[in-house]
Amino acid sequence: MSGEIAEIPQAAARLLQEGTGEIARVVEALQMPRVSHVVVSGRGSSGHAGTHLRYLIETRLGLSSAAAAPSVVTRYGASPRLKEALYILISQSGRSPDLVAAAEQATAAGAQTVAIVNDPNSPAARACRHVIPITAGPELAVAATKTVVNTMLAGMLLVARLSGDAALVSSAQAAPERLAQALALDWSAWARRLSDAPAGFVIGRGLTLGPAREAALKAAEVLGVPVLAFSSAEVLHGPKAAIRSEHPILGLNAGGEVSDSIEEALATLAREGASIFSGSGPRPTLPGLAAGDPVLDAIALLVPVYRALEAEAVRLGRDVDRPPGLVKVTETL
Amino acid sequence: MSGEIAEIPQAAARLLQEGTGEIARVVEALQMPRVSHVVVSGRGSSGHAGTHLRYLIETRLGLSSAAAAPSVVTRYGASPRLKEALYILISQSGRSPDLVAAAEQATAAGAQTVAIVNDPNSPAARACRHVIPITAGPELAVAATKTVVNTMLAGMLLVARLSGDAALVSSAQAAPERLAQALALDWSAWARRLSDAPAGFVIGRGLTLGPAREAALKAAEVLGVPVLAFSSAEVLHGPKAAIRSEHPILGLNAGGEVSDSIEEALATLAREGASIFSGSGPRPTLPGLAAGDPVLDAIALLVPVYRALEAEAVRLGRDVDRPPGLVKVTETL
Repeated sequence: MSGEIAEIPQAAARLLQEGTGEIARVVEALQMPRVSHVVVSGRGSSGHAGTHLRYLIETRLGLSSAAAAPSVVTRYGASPRLKEALYILISQSGRSPDLVAAAEQATAAGAQTVAIVNDPNSPAARACRHVIPITAGPELAVAATKTVVNTMLAGMLLVARLSGDAALVSSAQAAPERLAQALALDWSAWARRLSDAPAGFVIGRGLTLGPAREAALKAAEVLGVPVLAFSSAEVLHGPKAAIRSEHPILGLNAGGEVSDSIEEALATLAREGASIFSGSGPRPTLPGLAAGDPVLDAIALLVPVYRALEAEAVRLGRDVDRPPGLVKVTETL
Repeated sequence: MSGEIAEIPQAAARLLQEGTGEIARVVEALQMPRVSHVVVSGRGSSGHAGTHLRYLIETRLGLSSAAAAPSVVTRYGASPRLKEALYILISQSGRSPDLVAAAEQATAAGAQTVAIVNDPNSPAARACRHVIPITAGPELAVAATKTVVNTMLAGMLLVARLSGDAALVSSAQAAPERLAQALALDWSAWARRLSDAPAGFVIGRGLTLGPAREAALKAAEVLGVPVLAFSSAEVLHGPKAAIRSEHPILGLNAGGEVSDSIEEALATLAREGASIFSGSGPRPTLPGLAAGDPVLDAIALLVPVYRALEAEAVRLGRDVDRPPGLVKVTETL
């Protein structure tokens, strides 16, 4: 896992070099005027990459975007109408049977289907009309890291090309450098506090909601601590009642339009005695990134999260590459 | 809160008596052939009711369904294309400013908008073309219970009428009796164990995924314990690594097509030493409902959850009607 985290900037550089041509070809082949809505399918970390992508699709392409529920197809036997849909399947392994079956149904239903996968020869890739390989290289640790970052970056490149947004293309080009800066941020104070805690929380909103959920999942996988992720729009209502000072709260603020909302939630919780860890805000408690593009930085903030969790697990003597009881491929039906 | 939980069967009877005419009028007014997809908007408990509704929409109406992200409109200033959408706003108070603003945008964008609300004179109702009042009567406790149940039941009636499914209409008619049976189930063993625990988990899938998330939120609100909810399709992958025997797991299985998936996940976790509380399966650890309609029973299973949480909070001397730091109306932008 450590080596894969260290490779993140190079994997991103590889995607920018080798993947952009393929993304341009897919964008040219897509018939966007036919599309009335988008469905994004993915589970676990891929689902969180899908959450980052859904905000880009809604804010940059002006299309509403749903998270697919594969059981609708594989368990309930329904075949939702998808003729007007752009259907994007995200799968790191490309081998989860229910995701493959749901994508096959979408293709058969006439959806324009795109697989964002690391293995272009996987069943997930074959189930879709178009394939975007994220070219992250082999990933062996159960807890995905570089593939998650490259998946999010591929989504950013796809939306940048679909919207013809030159500024977004150019900030994607800065990814390797920005991810290398993020790799240098030491967030071990958060991970050390979390590994001793009964539970933890992560707060984001909009573009950082997916990364917040990803940070929570990875903390559970790597440190074995239950961590809950919420939008700053949700956390001050019901969930707040369960937050106590022994629950470290990680705030993920990448700037932009939702930045105030996140800072206000963190400030309110801090006033009430919560333990806040954040690289942003007036009094950051972790090293942060200088202001940049919020789309890219929402992705980059995962890098110090991954690094800190991995280092803490090593300190505790946990087998970070094979967390107890977990497997790499999700065999769900 | 206690009185409102006890009122659940009568509130459902009121909806069946007073609300079905209004639902029939809305269904007649909707132009379903124009609809290519559905967007459901709601936060917290209303969002969980929306998750129950999205499975009904996808499995019974064959339309893909998205959860709205209000910040796309209120923070990012985007206006997603919604001309072909059926947009359903769920709000108990009917007063959350960002949900109202996003629904106004949807109506302006040409969506067919429907508000499912308790107060038909609320801003949420005014923001939509059509209104379905859930006629739950006033709810004073911060933690919503009878309004959540009536919202889910209203969604079930709406889909039953839209699909012309007489069996679904008839199982909705059985709601008052079924909810009264559910009120008699004593799940205090789960709540007592949870109130002492560092964290807890709830597992459902498909139609019980929304109720599972609702149970987790309500446990946090009422008992102040962090509780995570997962689909049985997700929990055995990453999240499992954070489950230990001191984390009680509540299984919500209402039968039907996903039943095996839920039981297999619970059995796997039990074999590995987890503490399972469930009214279903070969060796139930809580009293359960006899087999019935999975759509209705997914709703009914919330009743013993609410009752047990409330009773445990009273036993602990917590102010269940006004949990510390929470307010009734969600004032988010």
